Amino acid sequence: MTHGPAGGVARPARRDTRLDPYVDRYAARTHGMTASAIRALFSVANRPEVVSLAGGMPNIADLPLDVVGSVLEDLVTTTGMRAMQYGSGQGEPMIREAICEVMRLEGIQAHPDDVTVTVGSQQGLDLVTRIFCDPGDVVLCEAPSYVGALGVFRAFQCDVAHVAMDEQGLDPQALREAVAALRAAGRTVKFLYTIPNFQNPAGVTQSLERRAEILRVAEEADLLVVEDNPYGLLGFDGEPTPAIRALDEDRVVYLGSFSKTFAPGFRVGWVLAPHAVREKLVLAQESATLCPPVFSQFAIAAYLANHDWRGQIKVFREMYRERRDALLAGLADHMPAGMSWTVPTGGFFVWATLPPGLDSHAMLPRAVTARVAYVPGTAFYADGFGSRYMRLSYCFPTPERLVEGTRRLGEVLAHEASMLATFGPALGGGADRLPMPPYEAPGANQA
Amino acid sequence: MTHGPAGGVARPARRDTRLDPYVDRYAARTHGMTASAIRALFSVANRPEVVSLAGGMPNIADLPLDVVGSVLEDLVTTTGMRAMQYGSGQGEPMIREAICEVMRLEGIQAHPDDVTVTVGSQQGLDLVTRIFCDPGDVVLCEAPSYVGALGVFRAFQCDVAHVAMDEQGLDPQALREAVAALRAAGRTVKFLYTIPNFQNPAGVTQSLERRAEILRVAEEADLLVVEDNPYGLLGFDGEPTPAIRALDEDRVVYLGSFSKTFAPGFRVGWVLAPHAVREKLVLAQESATLCPPVFSQFAIAAYLANHDWRGQIKVFREMYRERRDALLAGLADHMPAGMSWTVPTGGFFVWATLPPGLDSHAMLPRAVTARVAYVPGTAFYADGFGSRYMRLSYCFPTPERLVEGTRRLGEVLAHEASMLATFGPALGGGADRLPMPPYEAPGANQA
Repeated sequence: MTHGPAGGVARPARRDTRLDPYVDRYAARTHGMTASAIRALFSVANRPEVVSLAGGMPNIADLPLDVVGSVLEDLVTTTGMRAMQYGSGQGEPMIREAICEVMRLEGIQAHPDDVTVTVGSQQGLDLVTRIFCDPGDVVLCEAPSYVGALGVFRAFQCDVAHVAMDEQGLDPQALREAVAALRAAGRTVKFLYTIPNFQNPAGVTQSLERRAEILRVAEEADLLVVEDNPYGLLGFDGEPTPAIRALDEDRVVYLGSFSKTFAPGFRVGWVLAPHAVREKLVLAQESATLCPPVFSQFAIAAYLANHDWRGQIKVFREMYRERRDALLAGLADHMPAGMSWTVPTGGFFVWATLPPGLDSHAMLPRAVTARVAYVPGTAFYADGFGSRYMRLSYCFPTPERLVEGTRRLGEVLAHEASMLATFGPALGGGADRLPMPPYEAPGANQA
Repeated sequence: MTHGPAGGVARPARRDTRLDPYVDRYAARTHGMTASAIRALFSVANRPEVVSLAGGMPNIADLPLDVVGSVLEDLVTTTGMRAMQYGSGQGEPMIREAICEVMRLEGIQAHPDDVTVTVGSQQGLDLVTRIFCDPGDVVLCEAPSYVGALGVFRAFQCDVAHVAMDEQGLDPQALREAVAALRAAGRTVKFLYTIPNFQNPAGVTQSLERRAEILRVAEEADLLVVEDNPYGLLGFDGEPTPAIRALDEDRVVYLGSFSKTFAPGFRVGWVLAPHAVREKLVLAQESATLCPPVFSQFAIAAYLANHDWRGQIKVFREMYRERRDALLAGLADHMPAGMSWTVPTGGFFVWATLPPGLDSHAMLPRAVTARVAYVPGTAFYADGFGSRYMRLSYCFPTPERLVEGTRRLGEVLAHEASMLATFGPALGGGADRLPMPPYEAPGANQA
């Protein structure tokens, strides 16, 4: 021991042999932050020889790069002093106006003042959770739900209660019962998180009638609804269904994004919320970032002003329709008996149910070895459920690669089925925990 | 009361007359999130007829817009598919390499793998606090400290303990004593937050010897150091002082930013941290945003690769030097007896001490009426201290406007002094709470 300069006793030099000297200093909320095994597999799944049905990246190859390039050059030379400067914590006024115009396509009437710009709608969800949720609160989610949202709720130390869906999405009676049961058990239910259009991961869409029913339940239960709608303009048939927010202005916090209708790399999303909520969101944003990316907002506003962005969305829709069709045809050709899957009418995803006894989580390494990847259903549940399901994305591979992917997947499944017949349930898998009836989908490939 | 469709009892329709129907649903952490009165005044301070010495916006008028514009057009047309797509949660590899090259200018040796890109260094601070701080933890800050940092610590329900500075910045003995006192009182001290170069708001810089002393105290106390360095390359005399992180790789988490050396509107900053900390930062980032703005990272990397960015920084430096000189000359001419102020050798800010009895917070509305604005010292303390101080920014107004600003400020102060002589201490102000000796600066305009 030595004496320090002020006469105090200095601590002995520590020989710290731990890998992480800070292991006992992290906040309690980090205990729920773990890198998943699934993520580790994806670095392999992204190799070019693998057909990845796992990703959710939009295909932006049809964007007119020459147009975007010249729009941005013009933006810099004429407005660069503003576009490259700090901006408003709430987001730039012209993009908030444009956002209101975009939302009108889904029946939403809103004022730019009620819009808060976020770093993608992911950050919108992060800020909404930050301002509403205390540790131990419960968030209601669909069964299954978006993996990125489950991560946010976990990061804020919330519990998630999954509520059953059917072919029209969230089941209102199941919602009603879930709220009642949780409150009877003394839990605080903070909000319902729902993805009404072409849901990630299940691909299903709430009808207009279903949306009104869900709102009725929310009204009865005095429950806040957080509506997440990145895919609403990417439907293949007819006009978009009006948003839940179009039916109710006071009870709904709406999350939107340009990531799938323009491009993700600018990271511009938004939250439309009642005024008092918006005030807190802006304060939270100022603390988190000072302001969302200003150049990105100017860039997207310039794109919307200088290009037929509605026509561009139509081009994307047709491209995704072709890919959906290719995946569905491939599934019909190559899936074994006992498989079933949803038939999405827009968006990026098909949700497949495996034959009994198979385990999508346990199977993934073998699939990647066979050069095809998907996301196991377990990623989309907070409670370990989901090993009978897989999410298949058709947004990024070409139609040919999608069909090849289903061929490879079919071989993997056939192999798994024969191992099951010979050896019994997969190691580490086996019978699902079935807290609620499994979701049976249309489009099943019946035996 | 009516019965709902399922036979359950529906709640009676609430006639909610509160302005905010969600007022009892917000998370506990929002109680510390309030819009400050200072912020409300700034919307007035930003009017063109007001000389604002309040802002911290860098002056980017010298950026070569034609060069930046053509760099970005080229980026879109050649690399747009990647630059506009989702990217890595840790940030793009090429920008992390460039960041390491930038940090070498301040003596830092680092590997790109230890860099995490953030949405400005503000978000870096948000993520660092998110992974380390539990409610009730204590963060040590300089007295005074950066208002945006105080907001983050408050948003995470931490307490701030301010530690005295002198003309060389943070006082190591005061630091040692603060840690000891807090721990003796059973508090958890999570880290020291320090801004060693041209500190916002006080303008002072830690000498190299002082940095080594601070590290010795941190080592003795096993204290983590968070070093925030947005201004390090904007010194007016000679080479940058080596960063604290240049002296110690294991105990320092370093925050950097392109906001002041290039431009703020892209929102690109970074955290350099030991490996285990970096892992948690990336998980936190993926939860918060999926990934930081990809286009912005490609844009800045392209700028660094295609322009003499070091030369550009020199141009900025000379411009800020001229403005510092103008402000200091104006202060010498126009400040009343009893005022004193720091003489910064770089960066954006001068920290002025008012004559006894004056209150910068109470005086602000009268200053804005006289068409000059500053930030009262109270913004930079967590404990209400600081009404004898004001931060004067010279980064944005022209030299002529800066001198005019000091003239107007001198008139306001003269008026305040005569009111004080006639009526006694200002309403709502009065004697400072003096938990520690006030910071007396060089460059004083002595009576």
